[in-house]
Order: sequence, then C-alpha cells, then structure tokens
Amino acid sequence: MTRPPDARPLSVFNIGLDEFARTAATAPNAQVQQLDWRPPLDGQASTAEAVSKLTGVARIDSANAVAISRFLATDTSVIDVQPARSAIAILGEHGKRTLLHAGPPIAWDDMCGPMRGALIGAVLFEGWAQSPTTATDLLASGSIELSPCHHSNAVGPMAGVISPSMPVWIVEDAETGRRSFSNLNEGLGKVLRFGAYDAVVIERLQWMTEELGPVLSSALRAVGPVSLSTIMAQALHMGDEVHNRNTSATGQLLKRLAGPIAGTPFPSATHAQVLTFIGSNDHFFLNLSMAACKLQLDAASGVSDSSMVTAMARNGVNFGIRVSGLGDRWFEAPASVIDGLYFAGYGPDDGTPDLGDSSITETAGLGGFAMAAAPAIVGFVGGTATDALNYTTRMRHITIAENPRLTIAALGFQNTSLGIDLRLVVDTGILPVINTGIAHREAGIGQIGAGITSAPFACFAAAAKSLVQEMSLG
Amino acid sequence: MTRPPDARPLSVFNIGLDEFARTAATAPNAQVQQLDWRPPLDGQASTAEAVSKLTGVARIDSANAVAISRFLATDTSVIDVQPARSAIAILGEHGKRTLLHAGPPIAWDDMCGPMRGALIGAVLFEGWAQSPTTATDLLASGSIELSPCHHSNAVGPMAGVISPSMPVWIVEDAETGRRSFSNLNEGLGKVLRFGAYDAVVIERLQWMTEELGPVLSSALRAVGPVSLSTIMAQALHMGDEVHNRNTSATGQLLKRLAGPIAGTPFPSATHAQVLTFIGSNDHFFLNLSMAACKLQLDAASGVSDSSMVTAMARNGVNFGIRVSGLGDRWFEAPASVIDGLYFAGYGPDDGTPDLGDSSITETAGLGGFAMAAAPAIVGFVGGTATDALNYTTRMRHITIAENPRLTIAALGFQNTSLGIDLRLVVDTGILPVINTGIAHREAGIGQIGAGITSAPFACFAAAAKSLVQEMSLG
Repeated sequence: MTRPPDARPLSVFNIGLDEFARTAATAPNAQVQQLDWRPPLDGQASTAEAVSKLTGVARIDSANAVAISRFLATDTSVIDVQPARSAIAILGEHGKRTLLHAGPPIAWDDMCGPMRGALIGAVLFEGWAQSPTTATDLLASGSIELSPCHHSNAVGPMAGVISPSMPVWIVEDAETGRRSFSNLNEGLGKVLRFGAYDAVVIERLQWMTEELGPVLSSALRAVGPVSLSTIMAQALHMGDEVHNRNTSATGQLLKRLAGPIAGTPFPSATHAQVLTFIGSNDHFFLNLSMAACKLQLDAASGVSDSSMVTAMARNGVNFGIRVSGLGDRWFEAPASVIDGLYFAGYGPDDGTPDLGDSSITETAGLGGFAMAAAPAIVGFVGGTATDALNYTTRMRHITIAENPRLTIAALGFQNTSLGIDLRLVVDTGILPVINTGIAHREAGIGQIGAGITSAPFACFAAAAKSLVQEMSLG
Repeated sequence: MTRPPDARPLSVFNIGLDEFARTAATAPNAQVQQLDWRPPLDGQASTAEAVSKLTGVARIDSANAVAISRFLATDTSVIDVQPARSAIAILGEHGKRTLLHAGPPIAWDDMCGPMRGALIGAVLFEGWAQSPTTATDLLASGSIELSPCHHSNAVGPMAGVISPSMPVWIVEDAETGRRSFSNLNEGLGKVLRFGAYDAVVIERLQWMTEELGPVLSSALRAVGPVSLSTIMAQALHMGDEVHNRNTSATGQLLKRLAGPIAGTPFPSATHAQVLTFIGSNDHFFLNLSMAACKLQLDAASGVSDSSMVTAMARNGVNFGIRVSGLGDRWFEAPASVIDGLYFAGYGPDDGTPDLGDSSITETAGLGGFAMAAAPAIVGFVGGTATDALNYTTRMRHITIAENPRLTIAALGFQNTSLGIDLRLVVDTGILPVINTGIAHREAGIGQIGAGITSAPFACFAAAAKSLVQEMSLG
C-alpha cells in the first residue's frame, strides 16, 4: 500500500545548484535545507580539501592574531634618504653588480618589456654600459645579479628597479630598529619604472641622485622622523587610498617637509627645484606608502601556522604571494591583464600584465581595499563611486582584522580591514582587488593607463595546500 | 429621504494637518486630496503672501538665470598679495583712519566681544594706540571709521578685521578685471580673527606684513595667476568643503607655491619660515576660498528682479543677507547660537553667536552646502557622515542651479548646487546650513570650537517683502 504523495513528509538537504532545492521546496510538507557551498574557483577537489583542513584550526587563528598584533605594533616613520648601496646590503657588496626588481624572482629571458627597459635604464644610469644595446648584452650575459626588492626588505612600484646609486627612502620602526626601503618616485609619463630609459629618464635619475636625495636627507635629519601612519590616516580622510591616489598624502608630506627643505644648506635654486618636483607629482608619496606597508607586513611575517598573506607582488609575468606561516616562499600564478582606463591611443592589447610591488598596499588593507575612501579615483582607474564603496565592503569577507588607526569617513568612520587570510580567499572565491598603473608591454614607452585587477586564485590555492603540509594537517 | 451614507460620494480637499485627510480617506467612495502646504516659518500671513506673489514670476526666473551665468563666467585666480591700503580704496584714503570688519554694518557700542578685541588688536598693530585701554577709547570715540569688508569687495573670516597695513590676497577675473580681497589666515588658537590681541598676535601680524606678504607677492608675480577654481574643484574630491575644511586645498596651494616661494629673492631662512607657516595651518586656504566666492557672487549681484542671495554675513550680533535684485541693501536678523563641538573647558554659554564673512562659501554653494564632499569634517563640527550627506541633499531644495565645475565624487560625481533662491527658502522653510568656527564671547580669548548653524528665516522673509515692493508686484 502506498501513501498518497501529498501526505508523505519530504526532507531535502541540497548541496550544489540551489535550483534543485527550490524545486523540492514546492512539494507539500517539504523541509528543504540548502548548503551555501560552491566548488573552489579552480574546480579542484584537492583545493576544497585543503581549505576544509585549515578551517576552524585554532592554532591558525592564534597565529594570525600574533601576526596582526605585530603588524599593528609597528610604527612607520621615514627617517632618511640614502644611496641604495649604503642602505641595502646586497647592493653594497664589493665586486658585485646587482639590481633589484619588482615581484617574485624572474630571469632576464623571461621578463616583460617594461622590466627589461627599466633594467637597461639602470645599467645606463650606473654607467655599466654606454648604449641600450650593450646594456642589453650585459644583462643577457648573466653577469649582473637580478634580485627581487622583496628579498631585501624593499619595494618598488611597477618595474621596481633599484640600482646601487639611486637614493632610497629609509622607513624605520623606532622600537625594533626594523627598516624597509623604497626608491623615490620619478613622476608620470616617461619614467624608468614604466620601462622608459631615454636621456630624459637618465638625466632625471641623475638629478634625483645628486640633488633630490641629499636635500631630502638633510631635511629629514633636521626635522626628525616623519610619521607615515599619521599622513596615511589623514590621507584616507582626504580622498586617497594611498596606492593609485596619493594626491593628498603628497600634500601632507610637503606641508611637513617644505620648511625643512628650504632650511637645508643647499642653494635656493636647488630648494625651488626640489619643491617644484615634489609639488608637481601627485604620486610622490606612493613609494613611502609602499615602504610603510612593507615594514608592517615584514613584522607580521614568519609567524608559524599563520595563514595571513604578507606580500602580493607582480613582475609583469607572474603574480606571487607570500604567507606569514610559510616563510619566504613565493606562490605564483600568471599575472592578470588589467581592466582599466587607457590613455588616448592605447588599449588593452598594448598593456603589460599586472606589474610591480605596489600591491603591498592592498596586502596591508589599503589601495583597492580602502577604495571607499577615494571615490574620485574612479576617474583614473574606471568604474563608479558605488563600485569603489563595494570593493571595500567586499574585501571585508577575506580579511581577519581591522586597523584601529585607519578609518573611512564615508563609511561612518569604519576602520579599514586588514590581514588577507588565504583560507577565506580560497573558501569564498573572493579575490583581493588591486588598483594599479598599466605599463606598455614594450620597453622604453612608459605608462599607458590605470585600472583594476585582482590577485589570481591559484596562488592562494597552492599556498593553502602548502600550509596543510607545513602544519602536518594532511 | 436620505441616501445611505456608504453610497454617498465624498470629495475632500484638505489644507493643513494631513491627519484630517487621512481620516476622511477611510470613508468609502472618498476622494481625498491633500495640499502640501505649511504656514511660513514666522507664521505671518504677509510672508506667505509675499512668496506667493514672487513664485512663478517669469522675469524673476530670467533674472536668476542671468545672475547664475555671471557667477559661472567669473574666473577666480589669485594674482598678488599687497598691503590693504594699496588694494582697497577706503583703506588708502589720506588723513582717514578706517578699519574693515565682518558682517553687515554695526556700531562699536553694539559689537560682540571678539569683534571689539580684533579691532583693538588692529589699532595696536597699526600703532594708533599703545595699549588696549587707549585703543578702546579711540574706537569708542568714533574717530576711526568702521566699515564692512563686504562694502569694499572684501571678506574676512570671523571678526574679519582688515587694517591698512595688513597684507591682502588679490583675486581677479582676468576678463573683466573685477577683483576681490581677503586678509591672510593667521592659523588657529590665539589669533586676531577670534578676538585675541596680545603680543603674540600682534607680532605674528607684523611678521605676516613684513615677510609673509612680500614673499607671497614675489612668488605669485613669478609664477603668474594661480587658479582657485581648479584648486577648489580638486579639494572637493579630497575631503574639503573649503569652508571649515581646507586641509587639502592648502596642500594643493602649497604644491603650486612652494617652489616659487623658494625662488624669491629673500633669505632661505625666510623661505623656510613662510613654508613652515603655510604647512602648519590647514586653514590657510580658507581666505582664498572666501575671496573666490566673493568675486563670483559680486559678479552675480545687481541683476534687477533676481531673487538670488549674493551674500550671507554675520557680525556676531546680526546675520545679514544681500539679494541680487535688491542692490547693496542688507536684510538682517539676530545671529544664531552655534550647535557644535567645543574645545575642552568651554561650552555653548561661552560662545559668541554666529560671526564672520566665511558664510560667503555657503552663499556660493560650498561649505555646508557641499558637506557631502567632506564627511571627515564631522570630527570638527559634530554630527555623523550621514548628516554631512543629508545637508548637501537638503540644500538642493533651496538652490536654483548647479555648478558644472564642481562635483562631489561620493554622490556619483553630482554637481554641487548653486544659487540660494530666497523664494525657495521662504516657501520651504529650509534654512541655509553653515559650517563655522566658534569664538569666545569675550575679547582677547580666541576660538573655542566649531559647529553647524543656519541662516535665520527673518532675513529671507524681509527680503521677499522688499522684492515684492521693488518689483511693484504688491
């Protein structure tokens, strides 16, 4: 004997497409539960397995809390500008020629156009070769060591090339003496970091080395440490997200340094040149923002069991991340093409994939993560003011803490979010958003636009699997 | 014979409390219309009558369009800094002693404490008396002419006192040669504009006269006109509303002037002092913002039949407005007490009522009208970020145009609103909102807070009645 169908209680637990659950729910007496579950973005069962093994593990949560507290305990003040060779050990080694570059490690043969262009420019600037051709030969010969900035507590935007003679910012945490470094921003247009290396570029670098660096060093020594965290907190209330918009931050820096610069023992004409150079470059603060983020994230690195991402960097070919509990290892995937606004005459086909160390700002909860503070940036990177708000809100799903020092006024003074948890990225499939500049794919041309991109999923999936192994959770 | 009540059609037209309409609407077959009408804020039938006579009058609308177009056609560039006596005719007259002050005209005997304090300070600064007592006697004797800044195309924040020796900004519309003027901002704390006049205040004014003014003049003559409208448009994207927040605007000004300042033929030590002075004062741009607004509103003044408000100014006792179609007449009402955030140790009882010419910014659609661009300002004037947004939206009900040059990124790049129509203020009862500083009510103390206030209704009601007479609409 069969019971009539409408009297029969139906209990459904659905995994997967919710269409099935909705159909089932139309039946009388049906009790339907839908599990909010999606396969991982890469569709691999091993990825899903890894994240399930990492989720809810108490020692990961504790380790992340330690990493966050070390990040937040780090004071970031700029104290000096010095030639890179005296600030960064690897660049000061006698009898060796070394150049630093952005992103994870990469060999000359594999590099993108703008990174090659910037290295050619650095070789010319250092006087190691006299023409682009001989510079190229020298670089191809392997006699110059090429090392990521990140391996030397340094960061550089776009190509991120730092050579021994270039002046670098020195950012320090007074309590620990820990330091980070970045090169000085050259401005927009034809500049080394976008792969240009003609005479104008080299002459500007020479002036920066001979005048800008020494003047800034003298001014900073006179005025004492300048707090970057203060400027960055102010700038978030002034329409910057301190990655692709540093207009206000540059103004705040200039307010603190203009008087001291004019007080340095250099000719007035030099003061005027330095002040005009800074005043004409709305991105001047970017490299300081990056160095400040690097210093805090270095402090958060090396915490066993922590799943917090401590670096995201791109060399124009690959995107790499580092994770606190996984030491100095890079987890890489192909760099993405950028969705953005191109300068007149250029389009997506002309652009290099994602490039530079500047995504250190997103890693620290700024840039794309703090876009709600900078709605006007959409005029530069594309999208609407509402998009800017949504990016910030969305990124809260993949972060583990808030930065009590930084607030976004437009969101009712909500704190910025902080600490990308690779588990959350893999689990939700929400990828870290990044505001960035776009370089022409050929050496020697320069910037052709700016836009928005995201970190590739595969880096996080690979890191998740490594963390499972590292913690013997397999 | 009576029809049953439920079959009887009911047609109701309700004026007044909508409660009656709602009750009537519950009846079957009822057709109810509610007139959206409220009595004017002052409850006077004559006010309601005046506004009804002005509403929908085509020649007023046409006149307002002319006033708006003159406002928008005005370019605002700062071209020089000169001693007030050489820039402002009334201050240069031989054999006469004149001082300018904020707001509508007011006699010494009627003035508030901080305005008296500022005038005492100006007399000491000019060397017309050697002590506060003798300065007070001199002012009380009537031998010094006291005249509103507004009567000389000038504006000054708070007490707004300008004396012949003080340096003033000269803002010019290149095409017409029309000019406006403002004094230079002294910074916060004990300053003349908040009624302080001790030795520190006078010495600072002397330094501003002897060094700051000449250096700025020399820098501006070297660099050429600096566009204020450009800086103001940028600043609205950088968290300023250019009345009580000029943090970004000051940075943008410094970016343009720092190099030229260092290039002036003055000692480096003077350059350093000037740059540090500007860099330390986030309100430095305020006086330029005010002068720019004044220049545009002066251009919009004197258009017959126009109901557009061309000035709102306060002397600490009375609030006065001027209307384009009503010439130079002031329409006054008692100045309001300010709802704000007070510095530690002070409260509302210590404050002077609304004071200063700085509400010229609101008259031009900035300040409180553009607060949505500056959510962080609520930390200074009180309220929430949502309040800031709401003020801007609300002010659109009493304005007649938009400023195509100025956008608010957070509102999807909506243009700022422009042109207060006195008819709309009287009709809606929505009062212009004003962000402002608060001075201590006694002379010699200074600023004790900042907050939000609004223009009093009575000014607009009186002006509406005058416009009816002026246009013979009675």
